[in-house]
Amino acid sequence: MVASRDRIVVTNGYLQGLGLICRALAGRGARRIACEDPSSVEEGRIAARAGLEAVRVPVDGRGLRVDLLAAAEVDAVILTPAHQHPTGVVLAPDRRTALIAWLRAAGAIAIEDDYDAEYRYDRPAVGALQGLDQDHVVYAGTVSKVLAPALRLGWMVLPPSLVDSVREEKLLHDQGTARIEQLAFAQFLLRGDLDRHLRRMRTRYRRRRDAMIAALAESLPAATVRGIAAGLHVTVELPGPADEAAIAAEARSRGIALATMGDYWTGGHYPPTLILGYSQMTEARLRSGVRELAALIPSTGGDIREPAAWRPGAA
Amino acid sequence: MVASRDRIVVTNGYLQGLGLICRALAGRGARRIACEDPSSVEEGRIAARAGLEAVRVPVDGRGLRVDLLAAAEVDAVILTPAHQHPTGVVLAPDRRTALIAWLRAAGAIAIEDDYDAEYRYDRPAVGALQGLDQDHVVYAGTVSKVLAPALRLGWMVLPPSLVDSVREEKLLHDQGTARIEQLAFAQFLLRGDLDRHLRRMRTRYRRRRDAMIAALAESLPAATVRGIAAGLHVTVELPGPADEAAIAAEARSRGIALATMGDYWTGGHYPPTLILGYSQMTEARLRSGVRELAALIPSTGGDIREPAAWRPGAA
Repeated sequence: MVASRDRIVVTNGYLQGLGLICRALAGRGARRIACEDPSSVEEGRIAARAGLEAVRVPVDGRGLRVDLLAAAEVDAVILTPAHQHPTGVVLAPDRRTALIAWLRAAGAIAIEDDYDAEYRYDRPAVGALQGLDQDHVVYAGTVSKVLAPALRLGWMVLPPSLVDSVREEKLLHDQGTARIEQLAFAQFLLRGDLDRHLRRMRTRYRRRRDAMIAALAESLPAATVRGIAAGLHVTVELPGPADEAAIAAEARSRGIALATMGDYWTGGHYPPTLILGYSQMTEARLRSGVRELAALIPSTGGDIREPAAWRPGAA
Repeated sequence: MVASRDRIVVTNGYLQGLGLICRALAGRGARRIACEDPSSVEEGRIAARAGLEAVRVPVDGRGLRVDLLAAAEVDAVILTPAHQHPTGVVLAPDRRTALIAWLRAAGAIAIEDDYDAEYRYDRPAVGALQGLDQDHVVYAGTVSKVLAPALRLGWMVLPPSLVDSVREEKLLHDQGTARIEQLAFAQFLLRGDLDRHLRRMRTRYRRRRDAMIAALAESLPAATVRGIAAGLHVTVELPGPADEAAIAAEARSRGIALATMGDYWTGGHYPPTLILGYSQMTEARLRSGVRELAALIPSTGGDIREPAAWRPGAA
């Protein structure tokens, strides 16, 4: 048994860690890796750059379609079980169990991006998959959401079989992550400052989330709002036919920052969906921004749902 | 003409930059890259990892054997012209001219690791190759020697044709270098603190170098000491037959840190050579350390030379 502190590699944020893992997996013969559909464009590109073929596996209202992994003939899978990025869905308990069973049967590796796990508002925190199987799950965390992406500070807890090869990749990549941030973050943790910071920010972000939901209910009552239980953004499915890219372009030209489902790596046919962050704005600014955004969209009835109500995606 | 500030990419130290360049070169069809013989083991491995075949080209007393590059059929070359690592040789003026001519004729790229350029003790600074041809030379600098490797802060000035692809590689690598160090270093530069720091350290390191040379002359008079004009280490060629690896192992077991020529990537048949750093020790500690080291080596006559007296290597 390798102690967990000996299985940690510190990285410059999550995506560097993903690149290191992909190269280590390719180095031991892996050829295909599953990515969630939808997921960030960078993940698939980083996997491809490491020599792996990235394969889309759809997400539905209960998370990644774990039942499709065997047929996808992949050696590994990247997933965001605590708060799927960007849909906000939580991986259902039976799928967690099924995932672990498949990993063991296939000798495959899951890369668990513990995305937004720290910002969960209405339910208790979701446990890490990695706690269920330390030999088949890589746990990846980052301070990007809880402190700042500019720190470039992340970490991975690795299965023992991957420790040496990932350390080697990291050394060849950049000879290690900057030390000052690591020491400062260690102090921040030890003093209990991170816990205090998270408690304060959860309260603040929850208020902003509530303001965002209220503003959407008022200004875009026909839209379906999802992904509200955790994280720093909501997804807003627009009613009827709408051109999400054109709406986003027009909104950006007015200084409203937003993303759309089409900005993600997806082969699915999602209805037009806007992705709106709320972490960086006051409640007043959120209300006026949503009102301005709504003026660009034809509106009808209303529907705000929890992620569990997410319809099957491209599956 | 692209302004030079638009051709800079900030990296996590020099070796990450080398990896990015190698991948960008491989991406546009490069297949072979020349490394100096001797050079650090990591350079060749990083080039190979990026898909390039690393080819050794020997260094002699006037620097890299530029005349051998054409026959080596390489698309690029990595070199340390200001203070060859680890031999300490400066690339001769006519070789600089010949290198630029070859780069232009072959459409090749030179990666200039401006290693130890800041610590030159007895002569004026050597100008950067990159000043002679901005379209064919990548200039790479780092704060590792002038401040601390723990900062992981380096930069490259790129030929315009490589800017986009290297930026793309950097983004996929780690989404950018940590910002706090960059801002702090910019302030440090702007306030003139770096210049003050370098002036202070040059004086201090020169004293330590002089103490190292004097101690070697006293305790190892038969050794040939080279690479003394710049940098933070000297090379010590041992007289007659000696097992450098065994001497180094014995010295390390007594707490004396050192390297040997065999620790570098070389196919050359160098005489047994120790590589001794002097930057981190007081003059008194240097003297006693050299005395202790000398007790492990049979000694004879003496010879301390400038790098220009370096004999041809494996050429």
